[in-house]
Amino acid sequence: MRFDIAYDGTQFKGWARQPGLRTVQGVLEDALARVAGSAVRLTVAGRTDSGVHATGQVAHADLTPDQWERVTRRRRIDKPREHAGAEADRDPASVLAHRATGVLGPYSDVTVTRTSTAPDSFDARFSAAWRRYEYRIADQTAGYDPLQRLRTTRVRGRLDADTMDRAARGLIGLHDFAAYCKPRPGATTIRTLLEFDWRRDERGLLIANVRADAFCHSMVRALVGACVAVGEGRLAPGDLEVLRDELVRTSSFKVQEARGLTLTDVGYPAEEQLAARAEQTRNRRDRES
Amino acid sequence: MRFDIAYDGTQFKGWARQPGLRTVQGVLEDALARVAGSAVRLTVAGRTDSGVHATGQVAHADLTPDQWERVTRRRRIDKPREHAGAEADRDPASVLAHRATGVLGPYSDVTVTRTSTAPDSFDARFSAAWRRYEYRIADQTAGYDPLQRLRTTRVRGRLDADTMDRAARGLIGLHDFAAYCKPRPGATTIRTLLEFDWRRDERGLLIANVRADAFCHSMVRALVGACVAVGEGRLAPGDLEVLRDELVRTSSFKVQEARGLTLTDVGYPAEEQLAARAEQTRNRRDRES
Repeated sequence: MRFDIAYDGTQFKGWARQPGLRTVQGVLEDALARVAGSAVRLTVAGRTDSGVHATGQVAHADLTPDQWERVTRRRRIDKPREHAGAEADRDPASVLAHRATGVLGPYSDVTVTRTSTAPDSFDARFSAAWRRYEYRIADQTAGYDPLQRLRTTRVRGRLDADTMDRAARGLIGLHDFAAYCKPRPGATTIRTLLEFDWRRDERGLLIANVRADAFCHSMVRALVGACVAVGEGRLAPGDLEVLRDELVRTSSFKVQEARGLTLTDVGYPAEEQLAARAEQTRNRRDRES
Repeated sequence: MRFDIAYDGTQFKGWARQPGLRTVQGVLEDALARVAGSAVRLTVAGRTDSGVHATGQVAHADLTPDQWERVTRRRRIDKPREHAGAEADRDPASVLAHRATGVLGPYSDVTVTRTSTAPDSFDARFSAAWRRYEYRIADQTAGYDPLQRLRTTRVRGRLDADTMDRAARGLIGLHDFAAYCKPRPGATTIRTLLEFDWRRDERGLLIANVRADAFCHSMVRALVGACVAVGEGRLAPGDLEVLRDELVRTSSFKVQEARGLTLTDVGYPAEEQLAARAEQTRNRRDRES
């Protein structure tokens, strides 16, 4: 079973369940357990940090026949209370998203946007071919929008978007990103950065698009922080490649706050390659993605 | 002086200053008084209700020479603390927006997006030629986005967007909208509805675009409520014109909640027509807009 998930990360201590803390995994698994009658364990594509948002997060879980029976039975009982036709054209898998919404409430800060059946070989984490993040910055050029303040970082002064874009594109490729990662013992920091660019939207907001096979810890926010230093004129665009190739963390830029960061997409290969991709990922990398 | 203003209405009891309540006018005027050294009184284009948002609100105020002196003097004192060049290409009028942001804080739920000098004949309220609102609804078709929940109303079931669009367009024109207004003694309910249509955006969200010379109280939310009744199949598209022409309020639809409603634009005539437009509005209408 595949789960497509969205959340406002502001009030969550990140994805991963932690005792006594409100986390996305904790809130979702609790809601799903109420729907399915017993514990459901989610495996996620991108284990986002505290405060990071998602519009296109993906997870998977296997439901037992008993749990399915419970989901299906409750559906029949509820039907007369629904709007006519509301569930008529919905496959049984998608009912789970609807039930979860019922438990979480209509204006919850986390939601299951879609549930769908997935091949047995589908592993939300290890089958993933890439993850895409967006980082949003309002500088003095941009019209700051209070309705978007939960997911937009504000920066004083004016940033030079063209220079930032040039610096970002220079980092693309297969490299050791140790200089842009919080180190973890035994974990590789070699990644393939597939896309990294900056643009201004119609309101003048600066938006980074960052896509890689996977990211190590705090990598996107370090990459963004380095580009902000370029946009402020404190670093030259070419400095970011030099810093990268020195392979050590530096204090010449700061890791940007979580507020502006959103996981927007996770890409998977075609069905017949899912198992091979998962096998390859497991062999090549440690358990960090 | 013209003020362009944006706010998340969730935590405000509407625009108009009221003793003991947090209102947009109250918070903004207090911030401007701190910047200008004495009271600043704002006149606004659209006096939004409790919970209604704005991305393109407009107001005006006249600053005394003493207040201007204060704004300009503080600017010189602050300059060394700014990023180099940050204020270099900014005209004195726009400094006021920057100062207000300093007082309100970077992540405030209300902001002055721009301040600019306006002709003496500019009256934010009476010179306005039209106001535009947007209403956002997530039904079961749409991917509900928790990051947009503050400004999106959620509706159970599926709405028929095409029928809603047809019903909306049928209401356009110069009419007495008494059936879609909360009555006020002595106030006319004759308005020119210039645009009213529905579309689904790329995520499947239903978005109403509503533009009129002016709106009477709760008019947009009543119009939206009537269209929702059409989208649910409880009313036929043509019913909305029939109800309108009966000129009395009805219980066959409900006034939608403020959450989904945002004032996005206010339109003004060319400078040489500002005074004439204000004169015309004052003569033709009561003080309600």
